Amino acid sequence: MELLITYDVATTTPEGAQRLRRVAKLCEGFGMRVQKSVFEVVCGEADLVRLNDQLARIIDEEEDSIRVYRMNRGSFKAVATMGRARALPHDDALVL
Amino acid sequence: MELLITYDVATTTPEGAQRLRRVAKLCEGFGMRVQKSVFEVVCGEADLVRLNDQLARIIDEEEDSIRVYRMNRGSFKAVATMGRARALPHDDALVL
Repeated sequence: MELLITYDVATTTPEGAQRLRRVAKLCEGFGMRVQKSVFEVVCGEADLVRLNDQLARIIDEEEDSIRVYRMNRGSFKAVATMGRARALPHDDALVL
Repeated sequence: MELLITYDVATTTPEGAQRLRRVAKLCEGFGMRVQKSVFEVVCGEADLVRLNDQLARIIDEEEDSIRVYRMNRGSFKAVATMGRARALPHDDALVL
């Protein structure tokens, strides 16, 4: 499945910046970082359970916000962009 | 239609912070700000043209990144959240 994960964290503190780095590293294992705190993730149901579990361990429940949107297949390719943004090529073989 | 708009801008400069405020104000005219730089927008095709035009006028083409994802109807309600994030109630009457 294709998921869009958005992460809101205050990076003005070293702890927040570190959490963002950890979330980015985790999500990049399943997809791509397309903005500072937006990740296009491609994974199966089993991976999603693991991903959710690991995200919950990283974030600060009081301070941070994570939103996980299930996308239509093909949404990542069809994204409209402006400025520096570009549609990025996911490996089609990985899109489950 | 339902659109998820994500905006990447360096808010470390006053100009960047001002652009974010302007993008937020624009997007909030069509929907909701769900994270600092993530907006759930509900609009029709004609509004989308206007929205794109106005976004293009606000952002810095070299510095900023905007991504506009077309969502399945119902995606905003079905979002999975963690931390401070919550699914927010859009007015169903406005979902075209």
